[in-house]
Amino acid sequence: MSTAKLTIDLNALASNWVNLDAMSEGETAAVVKANGYGLGAPSVGRVLAKAGARTFFVAVAEEGAALRAALGPTPTINVFSGHMTGDTNIIRDAALVPMINSVDQMLRHVEALPAAPFGLQLDSGMNRLGMEPSEWSALRDIALAQNPTLIMSHLACADQPDHPMNVHQLRSFIEMTDGLDVPRSLAATGGILMGPDYHFDMTRPGVGLYGGLPYAGANPVVTLDIPVIQTREVAVGETVGYANAWTAKRHSIVATISAGYADGLIRAIGNGATIIANGKSLPIIGRVSMDLITVDVTDLTSDVTSLQLLGTGQTVDQLAACAGTIGYEILTSFGNRYARTYVE
Amino acid sequence: MSTAKLTIDLNALASNWVNLDAMSEGETAAVVKANGYGLGAPSVGRVLAKAGARTFFVAVAEEGAALRAALGPTPTINVFSGHMTGDTNIIRDAALVPMINSVDQMLRHVEALPAAPFGLQLDSGMNRLGMEPSEWSALRDIALAQNPTLIMSHLACADQPDHPMNVHQLRSFIEMTDGLDVPRSLAATGGILMGPDYHFDMTRPGVGLYGGLPYAGANPVVTLDIPVIQTREVAVGETVGYANAWTAKRHSIVATISAGYADGLIRAIGNGATIIANGKSLPIIGRVSMDLITVDVTDLTSDVTSLQLLGTGQTVDQLAACAGTIGYEILTSFGNRYARTYVE
Repeated sequence: MSTAKLTIDLNALASNWVNLDAMSEGETAAVVKANGYGLGAPSVGRVLAKAGARTFFVAVAEEGAALRAALGPTPTINVFSGHMTGDTNIIRDAALVPMINSVDQMLRHVEALPAAPFGLQLDSGMNRLGMEPSEWSALRDIALAQNPTLIMSHLACADQPDHPMNVHQLRSFIEMTDGLDVPRSLAATGGILMGPDYHFDMTRPGVGLYGGLPYAGANPVVTLDIPVIQTREVAVGETVGYANAWTAKRHSIVATISAGYADGLIRAIGNGATIIANGKSLPIIGRVSMDLITVDVTDLTSDVTSLQLLGTGQTVDQLAACAGTIGYEILTSFGNRYARTYVE
Repeated sequence: MSTAKLTIDLNALASNWVNLDAMSEGETAAVVKANGYGLGAPSVGRVLAKAGARTFFVAVAEEGAALRAALGPTPTINVFSGHMTGDTNIIRDAALVPMINSVDQMLRHVEALPAAPFGLQLDSGMNRLGMEPSEWSALRDIALAQNPTLIMSHLACADQPDHPMNVHQLRSFIEMTDGLDVPRSLAATGGILMGPDYHFDMTRPGVGLYGGLPYAGANPVVTLDIPVIQTREVAVGETVGYANAWTAKRHSIVATISAGYADGLIRAIGNGATIIANGKSLPIIGRVSMDLITVDVTDLTSDVTSLQLLGTGQTVDQLAACAGTIGYEILTSFGNRYARTYVE
């Protein structure tokens, strides 16, 4: 066994949902797009349904169909990308609810699947998904007559609670939706943490469920243990890895471990990430290779058969910071070669 | 259908192998680790076997077992990580040939699977995998008595043909192996391009098969078409995406397309990558999201239903350069949501 071991603590995941649910006004849904943020949508979905989630969100219809197969007929499954060309059969067969993003999508949906449920996505300022206020003004009476299940929007700066964009988007969302007799949703994880003004009828936590920032109180969900293939002594002045990227300044012990950027450990983590073992901080050295990473283990006093890149010593956000990215990218990049163990 | 479409040209792949084979002295193997550099090891392996490859290399034993299932009993499948703890059954059952990296691995292999084939990996200076010269000196008589199938090493700087490391590693490899009656292998794609001094008895092309540098003459293998979810008008001064990362300096048309970093389009491509459409270079704007990318399509004169991120307009290496990485990382990061089409 030379593949790394990714352990996913489904109890921690369920606790994160329960805790975010306790903070939320109204219903608390769960976002399980991108294969459950890289952790496996079927397993993640099942444990969240058991914890109490009744509504799930995915990015695309294909993900919705896979989730439906895992969860059975009861939960509501909403699709952020709405009703795209070619989606009609899958939406119907898997009983998905598209979050309609445009007039084009609205027409496509009501023509192809009259009376099938749908939600509406409005742009409150992020300019990414959803109808613009002007589009919405033109369409709202027609759309409301079709009994949408939800009206939603998404915050662009919820990771920064003091950013004026949050209040701007909140006002815009209220202006577009106040007085309508349709459930509303604006907040993902960051929005939940900003308090009840942002909660409306449904919150949609995503990254916080999986142990990531901005939910600082989240229980960590993932542990990644990477087996050591071999260790070697490296003399002063010798180099390690592609392009001779690292040079030994002292007599060193270097471990080669069995994971690399093809496993989602992006090359940029070669710029300063460390691995914690036996209380020591061990630098990743040289370039991250496709299947291999080299680590300076000189400071270890005993042999190790594996090194833990993620776990109690290092969170996904700490690793992400070394690579100039965010915990979300570390999570959703987890590769297919890992031996995955679900703790329940 | 809102997932992006990844098209893999297996004819181009086969041509790349044939062309690299024509340049190679001795046997030309094929490296199909990391799921065939992200393109699907079973399909890639089958077409390369049909083109003439008789020996394949994978990173870990689990990949070897999957490849054996796809290719049947005939080809040789070598494993770079060697014989790790726990690998014995899989090596035996899938008839894999571990490339032994250390004395520990050698002992493990001959004790667990006496008379089973193995190769030897030597470190000629990269300090990543393989036995050190001193380790090799101590072990070589014992190891050679067991009839290894191959002795191999790997170049650290083959992407830079003029780098003195190449000659240094070549000399070191010759010193460790000259006069032995065992087939030898040193060159991957870069080594093939450096000429016959580096070829020995077997070359092991990897990235060049898949259309990547340093093989500038490679036929491109992948095309990635991403559907447009919607377009919107954005007024001067409005912002787009997370953290308001992009501000419109002119009245703009922005398309939101259905792929993101969860599909392996790493966040760093937000720093300057473009998409070519109708001869126009369209900048990716704002932050790359998990499932979505926003593109400034103002300069397009007609509507488009999808945009091509990779293909004739942009190679994997060009996209990689925008993100400060290498084509290899773009290839091996391709995600699971793509609809994959193999052209044969």
